[in-house]
Order: sequence, then C-alpha cells, then structure tokens
Amino acid sequence: MADPSKQTGIDMETARSRTSIQVPAVRDFLYAGAARWRKREQIVDILTKDPVFDKSKRLFATRKELYIRGQTLANRLYELQEIHGWSKEDTNVALAVVDEGLSIGLHNVAFEPVFRLQASPELFAKYIDLIANKGIIGCYLQTELAHGTNVNRLETTATYLPETREFDIHSPTLTSTKWWIGALGKTATHGVVQAKLILPGGNDLGPHLFLVQLRSLDTHASLPGRIIGDIGPKAMGGFATTDNGFARFDHVRIPKENMLSKFAGVTDEGKYVTPPHAKLSYGGMLYIRSGMVTTAGTTIGKGATVAIRYATVRRQGEVGPDGLERQTITYPSVHVRLVPLIARAYVFVELGRALTRGFDSLARGLSSGDTSELAEMHVMTSGLKVLVSTTGIQDLETARRSMGGHGYSAFAGVGRMYADYVPAATYEGENFVLDGQVLRAALKAFRGIFASSSPATASSLSPTSKYLRLLLDKELVPPELSAASWSQPATAILLLEWRAALIVHESAQTLAQPDATATQRVSRAVTEAFVAARVGELIDALGAALPPQEASVVGKVYLLYLLTTVEASLVDLLSFGIFRASPTGNPPRSRDPTRALRLAIAGLCGELVPEAIGLTDAFGFSDWELDSALGVYNGKAYDALWARVQQEPLNQTEVTEAYETSIKPLMLRGRKIASKL
Amino acid sequence: MADPSKQTGIDMETARSRTSIQVPAVRDFLYAGAARWRKREQIVDILTKDPVFDKSKRLFATRKELYIRGQTLANRLYELQEIHGWSKEDTNVALAVVDEGLSIGLHNVAFEPVFRLQASPELFAKYIDLIANKGIIGCYLQTELAHGTNVNRLETTATYLPETREFDIHSPTLTSTKWWIGALGKTATHGVVQAKLILPGGNDLGPHLFLVQLRSLDTHASLPGRIIGDIGPKAMGGFATTDNGFARFDHVRIPKENMLSKFAGVTDEGKYVTPPHAKLSYGGMLYIRSGMVTTAGTTIGKGATVAIRYATVRRQGEVGPDGLERQTITYPSVHVRLVPLIARAYVFVELGRALTRGFDSLARGLSSGDTSELAEMHVMTSGLKVLVSTTGIQDLETARRSMGGHGYSAFAGVGRMYADYVPAATYEGENFVLDGQVLRAALKAFRGIFASSSPATASSLSPTSKYLRLLLDKELVPPELSAASWSQPATAILLLEWRAALIVHESAQTLAQPDATATQRVSRAVTEAFVAARVGELIDALGAALPPQEASVVGKVYLLYLLTTVEASLVDLLSFGIFRASPTGNPPRSRDPTRALRLAIAGLCGELVPEAIGLTDAFGFSDWELDSALGVYNGKAYDALWARVQQEPLNQTEVTEAYETSIKPLMLRGRKIASKL
Repeated sequence: MADPSKQTGIDMETARSRTSIQVPAVRDFLYAGAARWRKREQIVDILTKDPVFDKSKRLFATRKELYIRGQTLANRLYELQEIHGWSKEDTNVALAVVDEGLSIGLHNVAFEPVFRLQASPELFAKYIDLIANKGIIGCYLQTELAHGTNVNRLETTATYLPETREFDIHSPTLTSTKWWIGALGKTATHGVVQAKLILPGGNDLGPHLFLVQLRSLDTHASLPGRIIGDIGPKAMGGFATTDNGFARFDHVRIPKENMLSKFAGVTDEGKYVTPPHAKLSYGGMLYIRSGMVTTAGTTIGKGATVAIRYATVRRQGEVGPDGLERQTITYPSVHVRLVPLIARAYVFVELGRALTRGFDSLARGLSSGDTSELAEMHVMTSGLKVLVSTTGIQDLETARRSMGGHGYSAFAGVGRMYADYVPAATYEGENFVLDGQVLRAALKAFRGIFASSSPATASSLSPTSKYLRLLLDKELVPPELSAASWSQPATAILLLEWRAALIVHESAQTLAQPDATATQRVSRAVTEAFVAARVGELIDALGAALPPQEASVVGKVYLLYLLTTVEASLVDLLSFGIFRASPTGNPPRSRDPTRALRLAIAGLCGELVPEAIGLTDAFGFSDWELDSALGVYNGKAYDALWARVQQEPLNQTEVTEAYETSIKPLMLRGRKIASKL
Repeated sequence: MADPSKQTGIDMETARSRTSIQVPAVRDFLYAGAARWRKREQIVDILTKDPVFDKSKRLFATRKELYIRGQTLANRLYELQEIHGWSKEDTNVALAVVDEGLSIGLHNVAFEPVFRLQASPELFAKYIDLIANKGIIGCYLQTELAHGTNVNRLETTATYLPETREFDIHSPTLTSTKWWIGALGKTATHGVVQAKLILPGGNDLGPHLFLVQLRSLDTHASLPGRIIGDIGPKAMGGFATTDNGFARFDHVRIPKENMLSKFAGVTDEGKYVTPPHAKLSYGGMLYIRSGMVTTAGTTIGKGATVAIRYATVRRQGEVGPDGLERQTITYPSVHVRLVPLIARAYVFVELGRALTRGFDSLARGLSSGDTSELAEMHVMTSGLKVLVSTTGIQDLETARRSMGGHGYSAFAGVGRMYADYVPAATYEGENFVLDGQVLRAALKAFRGIFASSSPATASSLSPTSKYLRLLLDKELVPPELSAASWSQPATAILLLEWRAALIVHESAQTLAQPDATATQRVSRAVTEAFVAARVGELIDALGAALPPQEASVVGKVYLLYLLTTVEASLVDLLSFGIFRASPTGNPPRSRDPTRALRLAIAGLCGELVPEAIGLTDAFGFSDWELDSALGVYNGKAYDALWARVQQEPLNQTEVTEAYETSIKPLMLRGRKIASKL
C-alpha cells in the first residue's frame, strides 16, 4: 500500500501537471506585467535568504518579543532599501510581503499621506524630507478611548492662544485619551493629532489636525505633558508586532505653524479661515480604504492557496479504485466552498488596482482643491470596504475550517492570517456606519432620478448608481431565467442590478419605518451591483489580456464570482420577484426554482477543480510568505507539520517542569484515595 | 457636561433599575433551581479569592507558561475538592467555570467515559479507582496525523500474538502518528488507543480500543517504544493550556487484558467475539456532543453579557436631548444583532439540559446492551452539534464586532472566547461530515413513511422526524401569513417544519444529481425543525416554571429565537413557496413580503432592550469569570480598560529596548539622507 506521506508529494505533482493554464501568463496578468512580478520575486528572494526575516520562532514568542522583532525588521528593510537601491514602490512591496503589522507601515499609510495632503506649504517644506526618509517616525492620532466613528464628538482640544501664537493641546478626561493609534505605543516621535479647534471666546470649530512632537529625538522618552503607552495585546494574538498606543495631553503647547492648515487655518489674531470643502480631510481615510480592496484579494488568495493545496494532498473518507481515500478537493462539499475563494481573490485584486488608479486621480484633484470626484469616491470606497472586509474575513475562516482539525494548528498559518485580518471589519470606518453612508448616497441618487428640475438620465448616472436606469423605463422587467441563463455573465449582472434598484426603491418607500437590517441590505445590494458591472468589464477585457485558454479559465473564475454573488442574494431576489424561473427552466423532479443556479455553481466549481492548483500558484506566494505547513508548494504537508512540531518549546525537555510541581502531587493524592477505597 | 467615564457607571445602574424581571428568579430557572445556583456561586467565590486562579497575567504569558499554569490550576482544583469536600458534580462545576482547556478535563470527558463504557469487568475493577481519583491521568487516542473522520482508515495496528497473549501496538508510518490528542503532549500517563485489530492470519477487524501505559509512574518519562510530544500552538492562541499531543508506537506490547472488550473481544487463541451492535463505540462521542449544546449556550451567554453591557455604557453617534451621544444599545442596527444572542443562549442552555438527561438514559441502556435509543440519539446529537457550534462561533464574532474597535482588544475578552470555541466546528465530528449523517437519517425516515409494509404514521414518527407528518396528508398546505402571524410561536414552528419536510422531499427526488450544498441545507432544516418544536414545548412550560412577568419576558426571548431562525431560512421558505404572505398582510407602500417578519423581529428586539441587562445578569457570570474590561458588572468599562493597560509589559519601561537597536538607527539613517537632500 502507498505510504500516505509519500503520496502527498505525488498528488501535488499530478495536480500541477493537470492544470491547463500557463501559470506564468496568469501570474503576470495578476501582477499587471512580468516586470512587476520579477521585481517582487527578487525582493522576496532577498528577504527569504536574510536570517533577520526568519519566521520559525515567532509562534513561540511573547508579544513584547514580537514588537521588538518588528522594529528589527523595519530597520533591516530600510537598510536593504539603501543596499539594493530600492525605489519607494519596491520598499512598499517588501513591506507588504513581510506579513507583519509593522509600526513603520502606519507612518507610511496613515501619517505621511495626511501630512502631504493637508500641511501648509511652509510646514511641508520644513518636515517633508525628514518624514519621507523616516528621519522622524509619525503616527495619526484620531480615535479616542470613548470616541471613534463620530469625530465631531472627539474631546481633545486645541485652544488657540493669540498672545503667544500657540495652540494648547489638551485631553480633558480619561475618555479623551487617544487610543488604538498605530505606532504610538513605543515607536513614534511625532503625531498628527485630531483635536477640536477652540478659538478665542470659546468658539468650537470642530476637529482639525495638528503636528505634535511626542518623544525626544535624543532619548526617545515621552516629552513633558504627554502620557504615552501601548494599549496591550490584541484579540487572538493579532497585530502583535504593532504598538497601538494611547496618549493623554496635559496642556501641551505647539507653535501656530504646526496646524495642518492647507485648507483651513487661523489668523494670528484668532479668526478662522474657512475650508473650501468640508470633506477634504477624508482624503487620508479614502487612501487607506482604496488599498483595502487589493489587500482583501491577496489575503483571500493566501487562504485559498493554503486550503486548496492541503485539500489536494489530503485524503479522507471514501476509498477509490486505487485503494486510496479520495483527495478532499474532489468532494463537491469541499470544492464548492474553496473554488469561489479563488474567484473573489481574482476579482478583488483587479478591482483594487482600478480603485488605486482612481484614488491617484482624486488626490491630484484634491491637491488643487478640486473635490468633484470626492463624493463618488467616498461612497464607492465605503461600500467596497464593507464588502471586501466582510468577505475576506469569512473566506479566511472558510479556508481554515475546510482543512478539518489541522486548520486549527497555528502551523497551518491561516489562523494567524485571520487574527491579523479580522479587525478590518471595524477599523478605518466601522462597517455598520459605512453602510449608513452608502444608504444615504443611494437614496439621494434615487431621488435624483425623479427630480423635477433636471431628472437624471441613464447616461448621467454615476458608476455607483448606474443600476437606477432600470427604474427609468416602466416597461423594463427582470429577465426570465432558464438553466442556460447561468452561463451568461450579463444575466447575473442584470439580476444584481435589479436587486439594487428595487431594494433602494423599497427603502425609499419605507423610510418612515425602516426595519433594523435595511441599511445593510441596501448597502450590500448597491455595492454588489457596482462590482458586478465592473466584473462584466473585466470579462470583456480578458481576450486582450491573456492567451485564449487562460482567458477562458479566468473567464469562468469571474463568472463563478457573479453566480455565487447571486446565490448569496437569493432572499432579496426571491422576495422582490426578480428571480423569475421560466416554467420549463426547472430541472425535472425538482420543486426548487434555485436548483438550476446551484447546479451551475457546482458545475463551474467542478470544472475549475483541475485548474485550482494552477490558479493559486499564479498568486505567486512563496513558502516563506505563506508560512504554512499545510500549504507548502511541494505538497508534503505532513512532513512539514512534523518538522514544525519538533521546534515546540514544550518538546525541548522529556519531562515537563509541571510534573514535579503539579502533575505528580495530583496523581499521588489520587493514588492515596484509591488505595484507601 | 457629564464626564463620560462617570457616565458609564450611571448608565449601567439606570439600565439595571429599568429591567422588569426579577433577576434571581430567572437565574434560578437557568440553573434549574436555586440550590444549584448557590452551590455554583460558592465555588466561584472560592476560586475568585484564591490567588492561584488570578487571571491578570495570562494574556502576557507564553504558551509554555500557560500550560504549566494549567497544571497548577488542575492540582489546586483537586486539592480544593478535598478541602471543601466537593462532590464530583461540584468539581465539574469548578472545572467549567475555570475558563481554560485543562488537560485533566480530557481525562474526565474523553478517557474516563470510554473506559467506563467499554472496559471488561476485570479491567474495570483493576483500574477504575485509580482513574476516578486521578491516580493516573488518561487520554483518548483516536485521530491520526492523516486520518480523522473515517476511523476505518486509521493506520495504527494492534496485532494479537496468541503465543504471549499480547497485543503489539504499532504505528507503521509517519501519517499513522496519533495527533491532536488532548492531555497526551506532556501530561497523560495512560491512554485508550484506537487501533486496527489484526488477528492471526492477518485478518483486519477494524478499529478497537486498547489501554496503553504511556509514561513511567516514577519518572513521568515516556516508556520505551513511545515517541510522544506536544503538537505545538493552536490557531489564534486558542487552547493554549491544553497539551494536544502526538504519539508514535514502535511495536509496544500490552497484555491481552488491556483490550477494552466489554462488547467485542478476542479469545486466547485469537478468534474474534462479535459485538452486539456495531455502533456501541459511539457512546463516548455522543456524551461529548450532548454536552456541547449547553456549552454553546453558556458560551454565547458570555459573549452576549459582555457585548450588551458594553453597548449599554458606550455612547456614540447621534446626540440626544441630554446633550450626550446615544447609548449604542439603543440603535436598532446594534440591538437587532445582540438581543438574538440572548435568545440562542437561553434556548441552548435549556435544550442541552434535556439532551444530557437523554444521554443518561441512553448510557443506562447501553451498559446493559440496549441500543434502541442509539440511532435517534446519534442523529439528534450530530445535527445539534453542527447547529450549535456554527451558531456559537458566529454569535461570539457578532458580539466582538458589535463593540467596535475595542472588541479587538484582548482585554475585551471575547476574542479569547472565540479562539477557544472556534475548533468546535471541526472537533468531535467535522460539521460537514455530520451533516451527511443527518441527511442519510432524514432520507431513511422519509422512505419509511412510504414503506409498503408498515408505513409510518404521525404518531409513530420519532422526535427528529416528526415534521414528516406534514407529507402524510395531501390536503395540508403551509399557513397563510399576516403581520399577526409573527406573534404566534406555532406559526414559526410550523413554517420550519414545512421547510424540513419539503427540503427532504426535494432531496429524495434529486438524489441522482444533488447540488453541492444540499446536504448542509437538509441537515440544517431538519435540525431546526426539531429544535423549533422543542422551543414550542419550552414556551408551553414557562407558566409553571416562572412568575408571570418573568414568564412573559422569557417567552418573548423564545419567540425571538423562532423568528430569527425563520428569517435565516428565508431562501428555503421562499424557494419552496412556504412563505405565503397574505395579500393584505403586507405593510403599506412595501413590495417586500418579508417586511412584516423583519419588522416583528425589530419590534421584539426593541421590546427586549430594557430587559437585556437583566436577562444577561441572570446568566450569573462574575467579573472574574468573564475576565473582560468591557463587560464589567458595574459598567465602568473605560476605567477597567485603563487599569488593564497599565499592566502591559511594554509599558514597564519608558523607552523600549528596540530604540537603541532598531528605531534609532532607522531614524539616524533617515536624517542623514534628509540632510543631504
């Protein structure tokens, strides 16, 4: 009989040889060009060979050790940047492939962009070289202990003192303590503080931004008047490397010039200079959110790679003609869960790229005061942030659970990915709050199409409200569905657009008495209609981007995205009568109108199973990146697991020290009782 | 203006004073009597005051330290048992309130019950006193590195050697290594090993159980021929205290008497003695699964207590007439997520109690060879195990996320609960596999009602297939729904039974080509119909169990359970035409037939919000048990969080040691570059 631990390697080789796609072609497509992939590969290679980036001990370390390790990694990364002459983009790639929440990353994504967007030309000139080169390390202090979402209720004050031309930064209460601030705990020297601007006479102008030095550049000790520290461990061991911190300010004075006053300022006398657009300060948040779409894609991609590789080599259950149990990937109940992860990873990676391009254009506009794209970008990133974070969290857990018991081993790697990813639901805008913003924008667009003065037309609708065109023509009805409908991306897209249109209509009709989940339903429907339309465009563009066979396979992947989205929205589609199965369309002997859709999904997943290893190989994750014993490239999961287990600290002594102190006394007591019985 | 950190305490007091129920009455109801509650309270009090059980350092410890701490706790618990003269039941309460996966717990729930059920009278007599008093510590070795679900494919062998009357226990391959075995890693001295029984001539009789000594009772070192160790850390830091272990056997000889041969044995010559019932060995697993229902209830109850307390004192968003932001519990989008957690906790606690009684009766039967209740108990526990574990995991994450950013702090406590609870989906029978068993039983019952010889009648149907009565009378149709329907538990129960009946019918019709998710849909539908009927019985019994006001409030809680279950099954109800809204039943201006149900749920949640603190107080969890800064009884969440943060090891030094080694070099490099620009 075959040795099961040898069989794993054979199974992986066989699966790899069976894929019909050229992995490099698809990989280059995912990386938007062979050059970008090669550069990334070089960087990964450098890090993998550098002992500083060894990951073998981190699962056994305390959080304090992990924080210190994170600082070592950051310092080494910028050393490598100098040694190898990496561009800023190269270093960002390096930062991204190091799967750690490095404090310096917060400097890059939260502190520096806000400073660039909002500093006055004078402040910008004074600090930008230091900031861009990490001569100082910054953080962005917005959230307070008892205040997050509603920035207007922040308690920290910045009171202008005309006599000295200074601001007095103050935390009046315990609950005004800045909290959760990444890189603040033990690292940052400076911070951009969001505080209520108080002008002479007590006039409160709401939150504005101020550059405040936090720590001494000589000793790194906190400067007087700042009580600063780390907020402690995160749930499930997530973000252990990051020093999320707190800060209380006791009447800290800063010069007037330290206000970030590109768009709103104060005169020497203490008069307010009004900003041209109230939402300009959202720029930073939008930047972070637009990056979250791609991150969700690569995160799901990692989980999918690990789970699909393990399902390819794991044999359980029924015994086949070769006398071996079946590979678990061959079970429909397994692959119908895992193949859709590939689809969502592909869609989010491509979508995120488009969004980042959109943000670059927005940022150029904002820097010259043009805010015309801001509202659309805001609603788009809000809805997408909710959709991709919710989906990503769910998909990682699906990946982990699909691996059975071993998925719960830390060596499987996916638990760690989950713990680091799960706060995406609550940071950078709590998902339920963002849903509310999407709902408001949708209702505004809906009212726009019936506006008496200049009603919207199909062509004047913005991309995020294009679905409303379906309400402009009373003759239009949702399509009649047959089994053949599900091979057409257009059908699925149209259904999802109908759903958005009717659910927004319903929401507008019942505004006076909304039910408790209406906001979430509307937000999801609107965002999924937007994404579905984009996926349609991605499908149309495939022929030009990939060779025929690869285009065909990736086309199926995108179609699967659409069909699983339709399946997940069946309640809405059925409630609103959008899901109109043709009487002849239902398979024989079935009373379930959704059966044809479910069979189409199962069929598509089945067709894609032989491509699953190729499609996940195309993400290009190295074993070092995945750090998963179950997701090793060569498939030898059990050997990898065995090797990892030998490093467990408990296994370094034959008899645990707990024996003498606890186990022996417990058993001796038991034996004494037993012998007396 | 009010000091927000004082306001928290005020808000909690106000909420507590507003509840209409007598908390002690409901608490005694949940604990099945005041005496049981008082006993539990005494035990919790003893543990809380004992410094050994202090939890303040555990979030900062390494896993090795946590394992050692776990052994200390176990030893102390049994010392306290002696000191206070606790009964076995008392000690089990103590073990349950210590929220740690103690190795000794595996002895109690996995090793000892299997031994009791299946040991021969001789083996039983020899070991039972030692086992019952922990004179030896045992574990149960079933799962192997590459084999879990399908026990028939386990590779470990137990070859009978008639010449010496011994069994030779052997692990032929790496993949046959016993793996995941709780308490094996560094603790257990003995184990019940599941191995394929090989008789002379090579006859393989499949898995049987054998008692094997693992470690020396003198030195605690592994005995010769056993390679034993810990399998390493678990995902998200879960079950850190438990030494899940591995073991490889190299031709270990054990005496013939060590086979657990109550129901199946081997003669001295090596002839097999057949067991009376092939599934007798499931007894142990059933016992563990039946306990999982109550555990799910108390686990959800803990998450609900923490999240609801924090939502009561957390103020965010809109500002009310008092100038304060609203308490988050007052937002429908928050309480419609949280109040249903109370409902599921209450239902699972009560249901679990009934199930444990059922198991006791089953166990009495099994011990005398009566297996008549086994099949029904098996399908019931399989379906329930899937339902409650899936629900519990989801509800804990709902609780955590409802708390916004702070939910991701380890000090919130819910992340830790999640990490410890999430493996429930994959251990003790992987959920997807169990679903298959429920499906098979449902199809068998379905075929039974059309059996030509003695077709089932409504009264002959077992509790788990009672819903099939709806198919016995062709005249029956699902009820027509109006807004008033949702105040009737009977309506919701009937809908869920119709769903089970029609989905099993559909499944039987389409067996030749099932879709990939049919198994899960059927299992869930069948189990939810069973639970719904039990909830109906619980509602009927309330009047006798509680005073009128308390009965009325708990009745609403149970009704909410039913309505949210109906909401979650809308796809099935709509697909099969079961959800037949009366034309006049739909609220004005709405096109959504599900709207009345959604409004009913929102209304019920709103009614229960003022009772939420009382209903969660009634779970009786102390601050020590919850170990959550956000869920403190007095409501002063921010003070508690602040106090916890001061203990973070990173905060014990003003300047981190990473400054000299990493942060300073990084900034100096940056300043050098900046100054040269």
